[in-house]
Amino acid sequence: MSLKLKEIQAPIEHEMKEFEVKFRQSMKSKVLLLDKIMNYIVKRKGKQMRPMFVFLSAGTVGAITEPAYRGAALIELLHTATLVHDDVVDNANIRRGFFSINALWKNKIAVLVGDYLLARGLLLSVNHEDYDLLKIVSEAVREMSEGELLQMEKARNLDITEEVYYDIIRQKTASLIAACCAVGAASAGADQLTVSKMRAFGEKVGMAFQIKDDLFDYGSGEIGKPVGIDIREKKMTLPLIFALQTASWFEKRRIVYMVKNQSEQQKIVNEVIDFVKKSGGIEYAKGAMNRYYNEALDILDGFEPSDYRDSLHQLVKYTIEREK
Amino acid sequence: MSLKLKEIQAPIEHEMKEFEVKFRQSMKSKVLLLDKIMNYIVKRKGKQMRPMFVFLSAGTVGAITEPAYRGAALIELLHTATLVHDDVVDNANIRRGFFSINALWKNKIAVLVGDYLLARGLLLSVNHEDYDLLKIVSEAVREMSEGELLQMEKARNLDITEEVYYDIIRQKTASLIAACCAVGAASAGADQLTVSKMRAFGEKVGMAFQIKDDLFDYGSGEIGKPVGIDIREKKMTLPLIFALQTASWFEKRRIVYMVKNQSEQQKIVNEVIDFVKKSGGIEYAKGAMNRYYNEALDILDGFEPSDYRDSLHQLVKYTIEREK
Repeated sequence: MSLKLKEIQAPIEHEMKEFEVKFRQSMKSKVLLLDKIMNYIVKRKGKQMRPMFVFLSAGTVGAITEPAYRGAALIELLHTATLVHDDVVDNANIRRGFFSINALWKNKIAVLVGDYLLARGLLLSVNHEDYDLLKIVSEAVREMSEGELLQMEKARNLDITEEVYYDIIRQKTASLIAACCAVGAASAGADQLTVSKMRAFGEKVGMAFQIKDDLFDYGSGEIGKPVGIDIREKKMTLPLIFALQTASWFEKRRIVYMVKNQSEQQKIVNEVIDFVKKSGGIEYAKGAMNRYYNEALDILDGFEPSDYRDSLHQLVKYTIEREK
Repeated sequence: MSLKLKEIQAPIEHEMKEFEVKFRQSMKSKVLLLDKIMNYIVKRKGKQMRPMFVFLSAGTVGAITEPAYRGAALIELLHTATLVHDDVVDNANIRRGFFSINALWKNKIAVLVGDYLLARGLLLSVNHEDYDLLKIVSEAVREMSEGELLQMEKARNLDITEEVYYDIIRQKTASLIAACCAVGAASAGADQLTVSKMRAFGEKVGMAFQIKDDLFDYGSGEIGKPVGIDIREKKMTLPLIFALQTASWFEKRRIVYMVKNQSEQQKIVNEVIDFVKKSGGIEYAKGAMNRYYNEALDILDGFEPSDYRDSLHQLVKYTIEREK
């Protein structure tokens, strides 16, 4: 974890440590093979931004209580299940610098492990009657899968407007961060209006987060990070969508043809990237990202000041300034 | 569907028809691609034994009301999600005589469709506050994935006793039929004891069902059905486990060696099948199946007589007499 994230975590340092222990417990199994895999999953954990959003949101609107831990665990269990399944689909052998589950064990095992994690998440909520949290999270899971599928549907003909792009990233990315914040608020016993406000805040953060992610594809991140992968996969993101909007009919046809039929060539990918840069697509996307960033902070300002709220502010800042 | 199953369905004919409509509605999506896939899934539906167990159990203990439809839909959604994911894992191109989702679309799409179905199932329950049904089904999902993983863990060294075999099939198969019956009873507003009795009944049926399924691997089903697949995959089932128990130390070592190291050869598989048949493994497994069958009927006899109960009796009979 970068030093920066550690600083941001200061007010919830204790909670994050306790969460790790509880999360590990929530995955325990009598089946040896499964327990071994669960240990492995815990070891290669990522930045833990989702639990951070849950705890900081809970702290901002009230207090961090037991349901917050369960809400965070529910989200992490579902998210981990998704990652394990994704690795199978992508045939990925590496995840976060570690071998993926499907690389070390088998595809069949990886899918079952994903299902198991999902079931454990459900049971954690159902057994403790955290129905409001479960509802928030189920809605997010539906949105995420629908968003990804919408993106794949649109990738076929590349006819994607800015509106559709926002719809896609709202569903596939922003819905989960929105759910983290809503779960945090609901776990603290906040009223419906407060939960909605927190959800709206999380959604704005998620939008900014995904636009930032999409900008990495144009080389705006850490040096050495691969670029042009989205173009190769015919994923239309904001910089390219904007650039095509401003292009002449002829230029547009030429670029769309290249993405559609020649995107496996690095030379072509580089040409598309150059086209986007020259058209001001990068600046346009950064502008959109900053708009969401400011909207998120405006909502956040509506909550009572506290260390938690300050941390949340820092976390949003980190989201748009990170280099990976 | 075979004529026999249609007859068994008589008392719930109307409910099964209505269920089909409602089930279709529960999968609707605004995303075109998704809706197309959902239509395809509904078209290639199987024997529909799970909804039958739900409705007949509900009818046996009380009445078939709205929650029974939602419970059946929840189970079908989760089950369909599992099938779609399984096809990806197995790289299967055919399911129920139709092309699989991953064969027609892509792996990535198939996994997302599975996640979507799952989320829809959850939302159906959460939105209607069917928490007791959700709890029953979540527990079954956990058991199923654990059971499959236990089986895979054991397949590595083939050291599997009869007890472990029963544990495996109880978790991976019987738990879902048990959940169907428990969901049916709970949906009718039955008390805890009645729900438990129905669950126990379903578990016995599930055990008999899986032993029957495992017997097919020895050629006891429809002519032309492939045999020896379990042996090839080093899945230890009851006929072989029993046969190994009765074998001499030397014979046991020889057979285990063959299954472990040479099971890709059809000649070897046939030799193992012969060994099992000569050792009385088939009869032994049939005996165990009949024991579970009778235990199931004993529990069923404890319920008030009705057309539903008679149908349930017929359905159990079908389970152990079916040829595929």
